[in-house]
Amino acid sequence: MIFFKDGEYLQEEQMNLSINDRGYAFGDGVYEVIKVYDGMLYTANEHLERLIESAAKIKISLPYTLEQLIEITEELQQKNELSTGHIYLQVTRGVAPRAHQFPDQNMPPVVTGYTVENPRPVEQLAAGAAMKSVEDMRWLRCDIKSLNLLGNVLAKQEAVESGCQEALFVRDGIVREGSASNVFGIKEGVLYTHPANHFILNGITRRVVLRLASELSLPVVEKEFTLEEACSMAEFFFTSTNAEITPVVTIDGRTVGKGVPGMITKQLQKMFEAQIPVLVAAGQAQERDANGPAS
Amino acid sequence: MIFFKDGEYLQEEQMNLSINDRGYAFGDGVYEVIKVYDGMLYTANEHLERLIESAAKIKISLPYTLEQLIEITEELQQKNELSTGHIYLQVTRGVAPRAHQFPDQNMPPVVTGYTVENPRPVEQLAAGAAMKSVEDMRWLRCDIKSLNLLGNVLAKQEAVESGCQEALFVRDGIVREGSASNVFGIKEGVLYTHPANHFILNGITRRVVLRLASELSLPVVEKEFTLEEACSMAEFFFTSTNAEITPVVTIDGRTVGKGVPGMITKQLQKMFEAQIPVLVAAGQAQERDANGPAS
Repeated sequence: MIFFKDGEYLQEEQMNLSINDRGYAFGDGVYEVIKVYDGMLYTANEHLERLIESAAKIKISLPYTLEQLIEITEELQQKNELSTGHIYLQVTRGVAPRAHQFPDQNMPPVVTGYTVENPRPVEQLAAGAAMKSVEDMRWLRCDIKSLNLLGNVLAKQEAVESGCQEALFVRDGIVREGSASNVFGIKEGVLYTHPANHFILNGITRRVVLRLASELSLPVVEKEFTLEEACSMAEFFFTSTNAEITPVVTIDGRTVGKGVPGMITKQLQKMFEAQIPVLVAAGQAQERDANGPAS
Repeated sequence: MIFFKDGEYLQEEQMNLSINDRGYAFGDGVYEVIKVYDGMLYTANEHLERLIESAAKIKISLPYTLEQLIEITEELQQKNELSTGHIYLQVTRGVAPRAHQFPDQNMPPVVTGYTVENPRPVEQLAAGAAMKSVEDMRWLRCDIKSLNLLGNVLAKQEAVESGCQEALFVRDGIVREGSASNVFGIKEGVLYTHPANHFILNGITRRVVLRLASELSLPVVEKEFTLEEACSMAEFFFTSTNAEITPVVTIDGRTVGKGVPGMITKQLQKMFEAQIPVLVAAGQAQERDANGPAS
């Protein structure tokens, strides 16, 4: 596998990460996960724009433009002949002797990346998943896709140990999001989801779902709702780059709706699948063809 | 400089950190900073016991006993001929392909360490420091000395940019701690500090100060107090392994007490200095002599 680090494409053993990388000592950085379907990037622009935004929110100035980030992402896909899976990109504030305050402005950020081949979770997409509610103890800037993920890690582990596929963060009685996903409920023909504020990450797949709901003329209400309200939704699902639109059939062991993926959820899944090639054809695929076939 | 990694003492270029180290991707780990005075470890047992406790709180099982950790700490001090400064030890959950849930139980944690030569901050100890209040947006497990330090980093940077030496975290109007320190106020002959709960890290120097206050028959009240109350204290100081007992002379530009280090604070500083050799003579120094002189 070929990795990216600071402008170079390297073998893993050439990566040379420093113990003084602020990503290692402080989690002082941000990241993105970009989906690739059949060798083609999906919503890469939105992910890479968010990477720049996340970095800016913690005052890291990325050494690459959006165009250069897209190029790096495409190069990683091509060099690793990634078919279906994702590209992971990470930016840390750089390498400097450990001290909380930012290092000298001349220290460049450390940008790394690699690819992961992983198939679509087709079984889970069809059968649905179980969620476990977990007290949300994370910091109050969940809108930043940062490397400070210990709260997410512990929540996900708690869910997995309970035989669930994903955790459901609850703070002050309000359902916020999953450990690595956004959540949606459907009741009486209305789609509910948490407002995109500092309590959640505004997922790219979340944004796609809101566009699809609009196409479907499904009314959307972005407002807070409780765990009790979540459990009484007719349908429930979580979304993420890799999980796409995953139906939720139980929360804390309680059956949601009929205990099977809901009709509107399945409709949204179909629409999600249908728009993948459309987006690709309109965007990255043209560029890719112009650059010749992928390796 | 000699580094420690997973049982070996290495040069920096041999350190070989993996991009799949969960410390790098998730901040999934804990750490300690252990002070060394004149070649002698100070309160090392307490720090290393806390390292084991922090690890246990996030379900990392350390591959070393307390005795082995002390040995590693002593070896690092000796191999680097560290005179006055500190030893940094870090433990991450290990190396595994990136996924939020814990990796297979067979993945050993990654333990790293190194030393930093740095003199006591004698000027600041004498003149005092300025603090800047910052909204505390960190997670709700501040009792864990974890690598998720982005909130601390941003707070410290905000303080430094305001010309202050340390940030003062305020959550729900209550003063909690510094970005890398605990805080204390003195009013009408009573020492106030935040209770050691999940809102703060129970600092080793904090514990030393509570012992010294007891020796001084200074009444101690561990309770919450507001920023306004902090500003109206007769004396104020922050404590940490490297900052020891640092008098605070202004908070947000407002003069605290008489605007100079307070009398009781200076008394505590003297007692702190006096107990360093005592503790060392009673503890690590004996072991060290038994093992022969440092390097």
